[in-house]
Amino acid sequence: FNFRVAILTVSDTVASGLGPDRSGPRAVSVVSSSSEKLGGAGVVATAVVPDDIPKIKEVLERWSDVDKMDLILTLGGTGFTPRDVTPEATKEVIHKETPGLLYVMMQESLKVTPFAMLSRSAAGIRGSTLIINMPGNPNAVAECMEALLPALKHALKQIKGDKREKHPRHI
Amino acid sequence: FNFRVAILTVSDTVASGLGPDRSGPRAVSVVSSSSEKLGGAGVVATAVVPDDIPKIKEVLERWSDVDKMDLILTLGGTGFTPRDVTPEATKEVIHKETPGLLYVMMQESLKVTPFAMLSRSAAGIRGSTLIINMPGNPNAVAECMEALLPALKHALKQIKGDKREKHPRHI
Amino acid sequence: FNFRVAILTVSDTVASGLGPDRSGPRAVSVVSSSSEKLGGAGVVATAVVPDDIPKIKEVLERWSDVDKMDLILTLGGTGFTPRDVTPEATKEVIHKETPGLLYVMMQESLKVTPFAMLSRSAAGIRGSTLIINMPGNPNAVAECMEALLPALKHALKQIKGDKREKHPRHI
Ligand code: NA
Repeated sequence: FNFRVAILTVSDTVASGLGPDRSGPRAVSVVSSSSEKLGGAGVVATAVVPDDIPKIKEVLERWSDVDKMDLILTLGGTGFTPRDVTPEATKEVIHKETPGLLYVMMQESLKVTPFAMLSRSAAGIRGSTLIINMPGNPNAVAECMEALLPALKHALKQIKGDKREKHPRHI
Repeated sequence: FNFRVAILTVSDTVASGLGPDRSGPRAVSVVSSSSEKLGGAGVVATAVVPDDIPKIKEVLERWSDVDKMDLILTLGGTGFTPRDVTPEATKEVIHKETPGLLYVMMQESLKVTPFAMLSRSAAGIRGSTLIINMPGNPNAVAECMEALLPALKHALKQIKGDKREKHPRHI
Repeated sequence: FNFRVAILTVSDTVASGLGPDRSGPRAVSVVSSSSEKLGGAGVVATAVVPDDIPKIKEVLERWSDVDKMDLILTLGGTGFTPRDVTPEATKEVIHKETPGLLYVMMQESLKVTPFAMLSRSAAGIRGSTLIINMPGNPNAVAECMEALLPALKHALKQIKGDKREKHPRHI
């Protein structure tokens, strides 16, 4: 793979074995079917953690700093309930914010449902890893990826420092 | 009421008695007429403070921590003048940001006027209270509420920890 | 000029003399041709700095605090490459965020190209100076200015404390 992707399901229910992980496998499938448009991306790691800031941060930091993943997608924990803390954990580990990715995910998700406004997703860059929060709903992953696809390959190339990618247009 | 709402007018002019509070009564009326769509919401407190960060924070913290309001709407102090500090005060008291609410308020307000881009509104959750900044223009309250209505009831239920509300779709 | 504008080109390539500054002159031209709609604005200073946080901050702080510029436009350094740090420098110097300006620039830029989602632009107020990041692509400046023009004059008047500008509508 040119770009190594890791998928983190954030869910008390799944982590405690009380329910199946429906989002994780869906995300793996979405990345696989988008692999070519993403410049040759593949999922090389998946994990499940509960809705717990230190546990979420530990995986994000390890996957970024040690395993040098190119892209991490988190699934779930982006809503308004007291246990939803994925954006807070993410904001503590990223070095640079990427608000445009949030904008297009929100824009496209709102076309599907007004409940999209309840997503508190964060996104940003840590070292050479792009981290993007997606909602836990299995359909949301496909919708968010659809919104990002037109520019995600360029994003991943830029993060790696590819200068030829610096000014495709507009950046 | 299932959901207790408080309205905070932020204005030097109103607080000093030099002008009437046109936004506050309008917000009370908007919440009343939206009560059913909001799952049974009603205004149980109103107040006026000047454009002063400590004074704004004091009311937001008391209404959240002591009076356990479900929803606080602030009115005014979101513009570009030197005295406009409501977003700064709000960001100091919230624990979690809710950017999707800002997105839909901006999206809908821009359909009414390009001056909507001058709103610097913040929004977020403190404990079990949702705090949303709205501009001081009396018409803005109705427009912003209209933008939020499709999902605001679900937001308020989620904040109370209602698990059945966790995955209506997309979160 | 009623409003004094300064343009900061942020680019390692330009700063080191390895390439021409195409964005800076374009921005000067865009401001000049928008002068009337901006309430009488003119460029009174330009500079070039490398993609370096302390160097970017030094110019932003001097132009705001000493030279009392009304508007600073930065060009470049808003993308995803490791050297892109203009938003990080900007966020360290602004006192108040102006998210609505980012919203309309993103909204309009996305109509031109999906790569606009890769802009990480920040914007905000320091003292009585409005600072806005724009991408380094020469065309982006015109597109972003176009998005801001309907309300930018009011923004600049409000920052100066013009009370008559406080409630044109919506703020
Ligand atoms: Na939009």
